Amino acid sequence: MANFKGHALPGSFFLAFGLWWSVKYPLQHCCGGRGGRPGGRTKTPLAFSRMDLIEGAVKVFFAFVGIMAEQFVPDGPHARLYNREDHAWVKLMNWQHSTMYLFYGVSGIADLLTASPLPAPPGLDRLALSLALFVEGFLFYFHVHSRTPLDVHVHSLLLVAVFGGAASTFLEVFLRDSPVLQLFRASLAILQGTWFWQIGFVLYPPGGGEQWDEKDHNNIMFITMCYCWHYAAALLVIAGNYTAVWCCVRRRAAREGEDMEIRLLKTSSSDTSSHKALLQESEEE
Amino acid sequence: MANFKGHALPGSFFLAFGLWWSVKYPLQHCCGGRGGRPGGRTKTPLAFSRMDLIEGAVKVFFAFVGIMAEQFVPDGPHARLYNREDHAWVKLMNWQHSTMYLFYGVSGIADLLTASPLPAPPGLDRLALSLALFVEGFLFYFHVHSRTPLDVHVHSLLLVAVFGGAASTFLEVFLRDSPVLQLFRASLAILQGTWFWQIGFVLYPPGGGEQWDEKDHNNIMFITMCYCWHYAAALLVIAGNYTAVWCCVRRRAAREGEDMEIRLLKTSSSDTSSHKALLQESEEE
Amino acid sequence: MANFKGHALPGSFFLAFGLWWSVKYPLQHCCGGRGGRPGGRTKTPLAFSRMDLIEGAVKVFFAFVGIMAEQFVPDGPHARLYNREDHAWVKLMNWQHSTMYLFYGVSGIADLLTASPLPAPPGLDRLALSLALFVEGFLFYFHVHSRTPLDVHVHSLLLVAVFGGAASTFLEVFLRDSPVLQLFRASLAILQGTWFWQIGFVLYPPGGGEQWDEKDHNNIMFITMCYCWHYAAALLVIAGNYTAVWCCVRRRAAREGEDMEIRLLKTSSSDTSSHKALLQESEEE
Amino acid sequence: MANFKGHALPGSFFLAFGLWWSVKYPLQHCCGGRGGRPGGRTKTPLAFSRMDLIEGAVKVFFAFVGIMAEQFVPDGPHARLYNREDHAWVKLMNWQHSTMYLFYGVSGIADLLTASPLPAPPGLDRLALSLALFVEGFLFYFHVHSRTPLDVHVHSLLLVAVFGGAASTFLEVFLRDSPVLQLFRASLAILQGTWFWQIGFVLYPPGGGEQWDEKDHNNIMFITMCYCWHYAAALLVIAGNYTAVWCCVRRRAAREGEDMEIRLLKTSSSDTSSHKALLQESEEE
Repeated sequence: MANFKGHALPGSFFLAFGLWWSVKYPLQHCCGGRGGRPGGRTKTPLAFSRMDLIEGAVKVFFAFVGIMAEQFVPDGPHARLYNREDHAWVKLMNWQHSTMYLFYGVSGIADLLTASPLPAPPGLDRLALSLALFVEGFLFYFHVHSRTPLDVHVHSLLLVAVFGGAASTFLEVFLRDSPVLQLFRASLAILQGTWFWQIGFVLYPPGGGEQWDEKDHNNIMFITMCYCWHYAAALLVIAGNYTAVWCCVRRRAAREGEDMEIRLLKTSSSDTSSHKALLQESEEE
Repeated sequence: MANFKGHALPGSFFLAFGLWWSVKYPLQHCCGGRGGRPGGRTKTPLAFSRMDLIEGAVKVFFAFVGIMAEQFVPDGPHARLYNREDHAWVKLMNWQHSTMYLFYGVSGIADLLTASPLPAPPGLDRLALSLALFVEGFLFYFHVHSRTPLDVHVHSLLLVAVFGGAASTFLEVFLRDSPVLQLFRASLAILQGTWFWQIGFVLYPPGGGEQWDEKDHNNIMFITMCYCWHYAAALLVIAGNYTAVWCCVRRRAAREGEDMEIRLLKTSSSDTSSHKALLQESEEE
Repeated sequence: MANFKGHALPGSFFLAFGLWWSVKYPLQHCCGGRGGRPGGRTKTPLAFSRMDLIEGAVKVFFAFVGIMAEQFVPDGPHARLYNREDHAWVKLMNWQHSTMYLFYGVSGIADLLTASPLPAPPGLDRLALSLALFVEGFLFYFHVHSRTPLDVHVHSLLLVAVFGGAASTFLEVFLRDSPVLQLFRASLAILQGTWFWQIGFVLYPPGGGEQWDEKDHNNIMFITMCYCWHYAAALLVIAGNYTAVWCCVRRRAAREGEDMEIRLLKTSSSDTSSHKALLQESEEE
Repeated sequence: MANFKGHALPGSFFLAFGLWWSVKYPLQHCCGGRGGRPGGRTKTPLAFSRMDLIEGAVKVFFAFVGIMAEQFVPDGPHARLYNREDHAWVKLMNWQHSTMYLFYGVSGIADLLTASPLPAPPGLDRLALSLALFVEGFLFYFHVHSRTPLDVHVHSLLLVAVFGGAASTFLEVFLRDSPVLQLFRASLAILQGTWFWQIGFVLYPPGGGEQWDEKDHNNIMFITMCYCWHYAAALLVIAGNYTAVWCCVRRRAAREGEDMEIRLLKTSSSDTSSHKALLQESEEE
């Protein structure tokens, strides 16, 4: 869909996932790590496993929505690939976008398998996500033939985030629980999301805005820089979410620690040693 | 052999290996891992080592067949490299294909050495396979000079699978038993196999089919997307084989568990504790 | 700032950091490792953590100076991005340089967070530095449009150091304390520093020097080789600093060992066994 | 030196090192590993450390010879860089070659430092060798401007071995004792060596041989394939040397085992248990 909506839709999908990851992974590390409650280790894995299942299901649903939207919009191919009368392919752009969504669907299924108790090989979900990103980049790479320089450039810039994400996610197959790689992936997803919106605004200005001169080299220079600013903003969002999650978890742990302390004081005010240990723990948190 | 058969032959080789790997590796992991029988650990390594020997021998044989076919087809070079009268090289295409097969032969020999009890350095087989893939890609890269755009494009797409396979196999030198890398390699081999067939159908339509317009950009766009569909199909095949193997191993283990249980009930119906343990085991499987 | 000062300023920054790293890392390894004092292990981490804090603060300060210089030099954009009257972007070069400095500022903040007791994910500082280098390279890559061949070439050569540094720093996220990677990073920073100065001397010869012929291929060949000489010089500097640090630490440790020995002789001249152990230690150092 | 000798000289250097490595590394692994004598572990490290010292010294010497040859051949620059009268650089080709040799000299010094008891950071020798290879490739990459297609092609092919070697040697910084990487490096060194000779034979046929048509595409296709054959030959040489070393070590160990056995039989024919253990050992070897 070569219009504003066709870029806003995937942009929103990536943005949603990026923001979700920027909350989920700090939460996972705070709960499982330093700032966690004493009993947190046993409760949280179950909750996170359920989260992963939901994430996979949402991904499959998004991919399905994307494919349907690309196929059955008024000017779409309506699941028709080849026109025998004209000896011509029907709406190949929409078909290519459908293919991209298809691989994100596969990635969603891999997420479901990995989160389920079935014996999927470890790292399958990351490999599938890496492949989905690679296929997206691969199709985009051959996608921009014979367009204006600015159009080619804004799509090429996207490839940096896409292939960067594919490479970093591939690394995660082997370094599964590296917090920096997870946050890096989240930041690249946010970058992709906001950049899709930016592409929409640049190439198809909504509300009858002024058209950009698509051959001016200064516009290309500006847009390159603008891409970096998007990434700086993505980093800011990640930092903000990380801080917010950390503060929330810490405050809650402190409150629960107090509750526990009070209960302990009531029930076994004589047991001083365990009391001290608990106090120490709530201080350490 | 620039005809349909010349692409169908290597395609079938790669397809055979891809399908074989997609059965062998899940089998290895299911038998050695979670779903295995109690006594499986001691029996299977021997069987797998013999499998590897056979695999290496088959690879050497296929490579030999490939070289012979390229050299001694009616329009082949018949082992003649330089024509002194014309001051010209004889059938360089066939010679290049022979060279590709040669390195797969080397890879087969490395497989044999690694599977044998000789003191080959660990990872030799993977390095040799990675080299064979690299050489294939390297020769293809310089192979497509002055052809039609579509011809160049379908061969370039192949390079993605070839170099991707070379890189992932090189990783396996160090991460030898990673299930996802092994399945990834299998999927890329299947992709190569089906794509060789696809190249044959596109460039040399058998049965006098309609010729493709080799300069139409839409055909290039379609073929790029088609490549992704081939890979999606390869993933489906891998998933199917994985599931089938897992189910077979599980059912067999359950049956053997029952047999064992019955035998145990007959011989030592008094020993209740070991019986319970066995029941538990067959449930866990 | 397309003039001599605009290249000397970042050059000095990189040179300062490269030289500092070439002293800091050998110091860290000598103190923490073989040549250290017996009590060194407990004292040094605090000192190094404070060093890291100062380093981060200096980086933020340098980035701030860089941004301000690019924005508010007489012919700068003065924080104005778009000129509505002329429908033109204002001084995009300066804006791009400001963006580069911005990411080094982000890297400085990441350094501060990692050195502070806050729960930053491990490796954050290296990832941020790697990103800052990548963004620098990324902007430079699209920076050199429609310039003379020599201008393009000297800036392209810089990219080797920049992307090399980005890749090696990314490796450090996972191999944090690898001495060779740290020294490699230091050497690339020195190379960047001296090369910025070299670019300034070549493109804007100060003191009314003779202008270089920017289209002569021989000049391009010379400058490529010159780049290698810069690197050889950087390696020499690293080797010199490493040796100097090692000698200093060794001499100091020997002196302290003697002091301790004397004190021990005075206070407990009877305790022979501990004395011998100490002597042995100072010999080993 | 753009003549036959100028290619034969570096070719011989690389060939010598490749062959040496293909003997040294199998020897190291056979002596330290499975096939070694009981007392081998203590003796060999010293011998290998001395070997490394000699290797480093030879490398420095070769680099010195190379620089001198490039500078002081009759048509060399004789250490003169710039001709003030003509405003021209003097013999830049020779200077570039000298720079390449210089970095191999640096690599030799790093070898000496690593083999010496001085506190060089681990992996320094591999990093320096990787850098030397990278610099060689880097200079070659900008070296082939405005030559005939065949000339460009034969030098470009060399880059595959050079950059491949640089990457694999860089990996060795972290995976120091990986036998396959060491043998891979040896094979690439042999490939470089024989390819330099091949370049000499193609571009400057000695003995007044027939000149190659440097624009014929068939020649380029042949030379690409020929490069693969060189590599196949290099692999054959490696395999041969590996086998030879392994057989020698095994035979010698067997002989020494017998000697020891006989001595033991003479001196302590009563001590049956230790005798049996020894017999077992010599059988295992």
